[in-house]
Amino acid sequence: MKSAAIPEAVAGLSERLGAVRRKTLELCAPLTPEDMMVQSCPEASPAKWHLAHTSWFFESFILRQYLPGYRPFHSDFQWLFNSYYEGYSAFPEKKLRSSFSRPALDEILNYRAHVDDAIERLLESGAEPEALKRIELGANHEEQHQELLLTDILHAFFTNPLRPSYIKAREQGTGIRDQDRPLQFRQFESGLRQVGYSGNGFCFDNELARHQVWLEPYALSHRLVTCGEYLAFMADGGYRRPELWLSAGWDAVKNNGWRAPLYWTNDDPGESPGDTGWSVFTLRGFIPLEERMDAPVSQVSYYEADAYARWAGCRLPTEFEWEAASEDAPARDTLIACNFLESGAPAPSPASEPLQDQNATKWSGDCWQWTASAYLPYPGFKPLAGALGEYNGKFMSGQMVLRGGSCLTPRRHIRPSYRNFFPPETRWQFSGIRLAQ
Amino acid sequence: MKSAAIPEAVAGLSERLGAVRRKTLELCAPLTPEDMMVQSCPEASPAKWHLAHTSWFFESFILRQYLPGYRPFHSDFQWLFNSYYEGYSAFPEKKLRSSFSRPALDEILNYRAHVDDAIERLLESGAEPEALKRIELGANHEEQHQELLLTDILHAFFTNPLRPSYIKAREQGTGIRDQDRPLQFRQFESGLRQVGYSGNGFCFDNELARHQVWLEPYALSHRLVTCGEYLAFMADGGYRRPELWLSAGWDAVKNNGWRAPLYWTNDDPGESPGDTGWSVFTLRGFIPLEERMDAPVSQVSYYEADAYARWAGCRLPTEFEWEAASEDAPARDTLIACNFLESGAPAPSPASEPLQDQNATKWSGDCWQWTASAYLPYPGFKPLAGALGEYNGKFMSGQMVLRGGSCLTPRRHIRPSYRNFFPPETRWQFSGIRLAQ
Amino acid sequence: MKSAAIPEAVAGLSERLGAVRRKTLELCAPLTPEDMMVQSCPEASPAKWHLAHTSWFFESFILRQYLPGYRPFHSDFQWLFNSYYEGYSAFPEKKLRSSFSRPALDEILNYRAHVDDAIERLLESGAEPEALKRIELGANHEEQHQELLLTDILHAFFTNPLRPSYIKAREQGTGIRDQDRPLQFRQFESGLRQVGYSGNGFCFDNELARHQVWLEPYALSHRLVTCGEYLAFMADGGYRRPELWLSAGWDAVKNNGWRAPLYWTNDDPGESPGDTGWSVFTLRGFIPLEERMDAPVSQVSYYEADAYARWAGCRLPTEFEWEAASEDAPARDTLIACNFLESGAPAPSPASEPLQDQNATKWSGDCWQWTASAYLPYPGFKPLAGALGEYNGKFMSGQMVLRGGSCLTPRRHIRPSYRNFFPPETRWQFSGIRLAQ
Amino acid sequence: MKSAAIPEAVAGLSERLGAVRRKTLELCAPLTPEDMMVQSCPEASPAKWHLAHTSWFFESFILRQYLPGYRPFHSDFQWLFNSYYEGYSAFPEKKLRSSFSRPALDEILNYRAHVDDAIERLLESGAEPEALKRIELGANHEEQHQELLLTDILHAFFTNPLRPSYIKAREQGTGIRDQDRPLQFRQFESGLRQVGYSGNGFCFDNELARHQVWLEPYALSHRLVTCGEYLAFMADGGYRRPELWLSAGWDAVKNNGWRAPLYWTNDDPGESPGDTGWSVFTLRGFIPLEERMDAPVSQVSYYEADAYARWAGCRLPTEFEWEAASEDAPARDTLIACNFLESGAPAPSPASEPLQDQNATKWSGDCWQWTASAYLPYPGFKPLAGALGEYNGKFMSGQMVLRGGSCLTPRRHIRPSYRNFFPPETRWQFSGIRLAQ
Repeated sequence: MKSAAIPEAVAGLSERLGAVRRKTLELCAPLTPEDMMVQSCPEASPAKWHLAHTSWFFESFILRQYLPGYRPFHSDFQWLFNSYYEGYSAFPEKKLRSSFSRPALDEILNYRAHVDDAIERLLESGAEPEALKRIELGANHEEQHQELLLTDILHAFFTNPLRPSYIKAREQGTGIRDQDRPLQFRQFESGLRQVGYSGNGFCFDNELARHQVWLEPYALSHRLVTCGEYLAFMADGGYRRPELWLSAGWDAVKNNGWRAPLYWTNDDPGESPGDTGWSVFTLRGFIPLEERMDAPVSQVSYYEADAYARWAGCRLPTEFEWEAASEDAPARDTLIACNFLESGAPAPSPASEPLQDQNATKWSGDCWQWTASAYLPYPGFKPLAGALGEYNGKFMSGQMVLRGGSCLTPRRHIRPSYRNFFPPETRWQFSGIRLAQ
Repeated sequence: MKSAAIPEAVAGLSERLGAVRRKTLELCAPLTPEDMMVQSCPEASPAKWHLAHTSWFFESFILRQYLPGYRPFHSDFQWLFNSYYEGYSAFPEKKLRSSFSRPALDEILNYRAHVDDAIERLLESGAEPEALKRIELGANHEEQHQELLLTDILHAFFTNPLRPSYIKAREQGTGIRDQDRPLQFRQFESGLRQVGYSGNGFCFDNELARHQVWLEPYALSHRLVTCGEYLAFMADGGYRRPELWLSAGWDAVKNNGWRAPLYWTNDDPGESPGDTGWSVFTLRGFIPLEERMDAPVSQVSYYEADAYARWAGCRLPTEFEWEAASEDAPARDTLIACNFLESGAPAPSPASEPLQDQNATKWSGDCWQWTASAYLPYPGFKPLAGALGEYNGKFMSGQMVLRGGSCLTPRRHIRPSYRNFFPPETRWQFSGIRLAQ
Repeated sequence: MKSAAIPEAVAGLSERLGAVRRKTLELCAPLTPEDMMVQSCPEASPAKWHLAHTSWFFESFILRQYLPGYRPFHSDFQWLFNSYYEGYSAFPEKKLRSSFSRPALDEILNYRAHVDDAIERLLESGAEPEALKRIELGANHEEQHQELLLTDILHAFFTNPLRPSYIKAREQGTGIRDQDRPLQFRQFESGLRQVGYSGNGFCFDNELARHQVWLEPYALSHRLVTCGEYLAFMADGGYRRPELWLSAGWDAVKNNGWRAPLYWTNDDPGESPGDTGWSVFTLRGFIPLEERMDAPVSQVSYYEADAYARWAGCRLPTEFEWEAASEDAPARDTLIACNFLESGAPAPSPASEPLQDQNATKWSGDCWQWTASAYLPYPGFKPLAGALGEYNGKFMSGQMVLRGGSCLTPRRHIRPSYRNFFPPETRWQFSGIRLAQ
Repeated sequence: MKSAAIPEAVAGLSERLGAVRRKTLELCAPLTPEDMMVQSCPEASPAKWHLAHTSWFFESFILRQYLPGYRPFHSDFQWLFNSYYEGYSAFPEKKLRSSFSRPALDEILNYRAHVDDAIERLLESGAEPEALKRIELGANHEEQHQELLLTDILHAFFTNPLRPSYIKAREQGTGIRDQDRPLQFRQFESGLRQVGYSGNGFCFDNELARHQVWLEPYALSHRLVTCGEYLAFMADGGYRRPELWLSAGWDAVKNNGWRAPLYWTNDDPGESPGDTGWSVFTLRGFIPLEERMDAPVSQVSYYEADAYARWAGCRLPTEFEWEAASEDAPARDTLIACNFLESGAPAPSPASEPLQDQNATKWSGDCWQWTASAYLPYPGFKPLAGALGEYNGKFMSGQMVLRGGSCLTPRRHIRPSYRNFFPPETRWQFSGIRLAQ
């Protein structure tokens, strides 16, 4: 039975969805169809697959159920672009996505248009509230894949021995350096705090139920650890001293030969790991580390973040410490003022500029921040019904929570209660370090 | 500078230590020197290595520092029997322990006697408080290895195609069956609770600092899930239904071909996984599953425990729910009354007997209980100083907490705040399932 | 110093090379740029890489040395498209080829044209004999990659879950079936035979030196084993009987779950491995096995060929038995009459048609034929000078010789002394079975 | 039906078998029951297993068929000590042999005595010719395992971080050095040669049928390559120059980090791989390389032998070149005079002493000699009937032939036609290098 959806809300959703869908295509503008075939690590997917899968999501979880008479674009796409929803259909092994030369990109673009038209019809015809909620979910889902698409392309271009650039133009020098502004710590009091999403808007199931946690007094650094600071850790033997590492982290260092963040390259590292010959691979290509000394270090694993914190005499914050502090930020605008996808600076940026105010704290953007919290369900967690319940819940094992969003996260997508999560050895993300005490 | 230790405390410690050291040897009585060479899985060590390593611990962390003029038994043993203390010395790869045919068992026994004599001298000569604390730590350390030694022997004997028994005599039938006593749940209220060790005795560093947590209302089952109940899960397709499993758990099921707990064997499982032809391998050899239907299921991984709980419409308890409930138990004796190493029944036992009282709850013993909590440091956690700091802290990644102790845990070793931990795929332990709601 | 090349020979070479180079592009006509990115198994390379590498070969081994003033197309291509010549330059790991979205296909095509022009200039300007020899080598090299390109595309399309076809039109039914023509054996006498290349034309270094071998009396089957005959082997438990297999072959069966040739697919194999529900994937897509019963079986490993031969009470021929018999064939035309790349039937074809003559023997084409000979150097083998010496010689370990060419081998490329070679577990090739006694 | 065996032949066989069986036990005298449990690499088996398996061979292939009323020692031993005979019974995975703490060594020794008694009864009662032939086979089988037992113990002791010695006493200095006696080459003419076993005594099935091969003129070195010569290869960058290696060999160098023969150890290799700080682990423990400079290098893989030969401007001999030369040796005694197991010098010995005669050639003993021949069946090869056919034939894939016997091979066991075989990456054997031209 169809409910009467509030027309304004529907219009807003239509507009929002259109913007998201267009943005995804915009992000692909610098890519060739061949670029969109590359899958260069187990975490990544080809860009073309991202385009298709985000459309599949709308088709599979919304159009088939809620748009009467909907004609699926292609019968095989139902399972071909299923990522991991066991309850929905069989699906190909993830690693096979690099063999999807067919369907061609053009066909995927037609698929997107077909789905967009159908969603529009659904919205115009008065969709049920559940359908509207799922469309909002689909928009958020696509925002996640926008970030992944760029993250994966960066890895694809780093893997290509020619190391091409996604963006040709060189970054402008910021002019402001942060070297003389040492890391400060903001103090927070103990108490019983509410955490988890509390508003009326959209959130993922894993941000609920809002619940209480007890926090001891704590302090968080006012900005993320910079490349320069991280280089000092390296120069001090950071990658050669087991006492700084978790046991599993030390194994990872040895087994993978880690000696710097993922995209740091040094053709002649010589004797000293702290030398200045490093370059950092970005969506703009290689940039000398010297020009990135004040920018937050990124593409580090949880193990590296944890080891750095131990070396610095600190620790990583828990996800609740971060959330409580972030919620209490004097103006929530500080959250918004940070470097997200829309800023057009697709690399972590130095903290200086937004922090002209000596008391300001840069909470979000630039890099996801590893927390000391394992990704586990909140008390009263309820996964979404049906196959959609696999969206977040089944991954609550073996992963660590990250908070704050990165320079590739759409601004609108993020909020203080947002929980990202990756296995602790993950390095292909824009993942950085905030310290706690 | 030497402090005057309180003589009675020293005498008590001497007596306790002697009992522990003798117990370890007693546990080896049924073993041949050849049995004590077997290392049948990456988690396990040869029994002979356990005998040596527990002596190495006293030598390396106590005698060398605190007994003037101590002459080490053998210069190579300093590094040969180091398990994983990077800060102490280099050490052999774990898997090489199966090649330690030399030193011979006799030499290891001499090593033990040499160390015992020296510790006795140290105690008699008035040891510093720090030395006394470390001796207590060494005794606890050895108790952990007593449990591991038997756990490893069980796996060694299961791996031997002849499937020998550690204990020859057959278990007596209990006479009492629990089939008609359905699982009950005990209710607990919400509130701010203290967790972590609070007494004056010994505890590990990972049980501190005692701190507050907020608990929502919850309920815990009054006993562990039985083999019979677990068989019903299997019969209902438990190992074939991905919707019941965490994603990593489902991968483990497929990659390892899991279809029953580790030591359940069925030469002809036929069509139905719920059939009755299973036998369970124990330290007494194979026992028909039919005779174990009321005993707690054990040797299941965290993934299996989690999947069972989901199938049963429940969840696993957090470590703090368990600890708070266990601390509040009407008489702490219920903790003690359970099946630990001393009971001489080296397999999980049916709950019936101790639960004649309809309101009693069996909190501990029989099986370690997987909790839904990742193994992470408590607020204010401080590892022990020096290389001893590697004892617990460096493993705080990728593991889940287990509580309660098993049928192979020395009774004195356990307490409500005790935290055991293993990776979620671990199955060689006596690990079982308590349900929460 | 420049020698005066014989003009006619140069003209012939120019024409031949042009035909080869055009043919390579023709083979790519049905492919999209996205298809040409796929690398679906360790043996395979992307089609685009084949286009580039075959041009790299001319640039690296001919143009740089022999064309004065030659300007390389792109400085990075020197190492980027090196396959495995350690003596020439560093080169990327083979598996990275799937990340070569840049250079784009267009740039590769320009690279080809650039190289073609330069070779033409070199030929016109009077090339040294060594340069002419290398151009002939380059043409043969490219013919090998033509075959590989199609072999790899077939695997790429088999890996794509949609299973697209390289050729759309269905094969015409042959009308002639061979079922009632049982396998015959041709007898050959013992004697001292010359083997290895003996003519004045081109051959690879591994076909030399021509030398003597002693052959005992032997017999070879007059055609290859058919799919129908292989199905009988399967129906007789061929994949379940260890006594039919080499030890390493039986390991391969168990570890890889082999139960049929690589491209045989059966969604519901039921109880009997000999049932008729199989389809065979080809460059024309899936074809029911029923329509392929008389065609030679292909995509079998050496282990399968060997096991089939044992089951049939036969053995595989040695490479010298094959070569001697093939050289003695009554009319060498029988070699030519067979199904090679030019026939436009890119799948093994039934033997019936060319064998209307009861005494004819089909020696070549359709499938490479596994021999019982390990790939080893001939007495007096001399690898080519310099880095080109790595072309064949360094692979003389762990591989078996195949003879005869396949339906994807250019006709002109093959001769009786030609030695192909693959590891015994290889299955992605058009590799089939001739029996010996 | 029983034939009348020739009494003297039976007596001789009885005596020979008794000597072999006693020798096996003698070899174990320096070992503890714990030593006999170690299985330190996939190629090796525990010594205890060798004792049992060689008895199993007699029980399974002789006593059960040919001794009426034979009572097997233990019903489970039938499959427990089967190594790889699929046609005889199921058998445990090889790697499980390290878990066979039960049966205890004593029980294995009783098993041996039980089998010895039964064989004696069989011989006394007049065994069939086939039984006698199998007893001879069993004696040869046990001789192979004598060699393996010591080879495996050497690896076990090398793996033990304490590096114990099998023999305590130090080797006497030979007094004679070979440094000034350069490698000489013996010339051999071309011709059609008979190869394969031709006598009336025992040989393995893989030495038959005797057949003809054509040999081109060739030359073989008069002794094996020494450690000193091999050190020069290392000093010349042997392990760092891909042009010297087969492709698969170079992969093995990189993947395994090879930089010297297996048992060469150098705690501080410094800059130069040719330095003199190396020691060689032997059954007598570590011996400085300086004292082994004239002894044949051993524990090298086929890849290393091949690379050394290429570096030296030579090649490895084929198995037939070796066999023909060895058969033609001026006095067959030279074969016998070499260093086999009975010499009590369980390490390769310098060639000097037996070669006082300037024209003598040392063909056998010291080290197995890698040949350039793949291990393949001879024309007319017939495996033994039944499960015994798996003895040699099923391994004819992926292995290279070695000739000549080593310092651990029983003298009586070897003959010119004897073919040993191992995969090309194998290094735990006493495998060395003879050069050919």
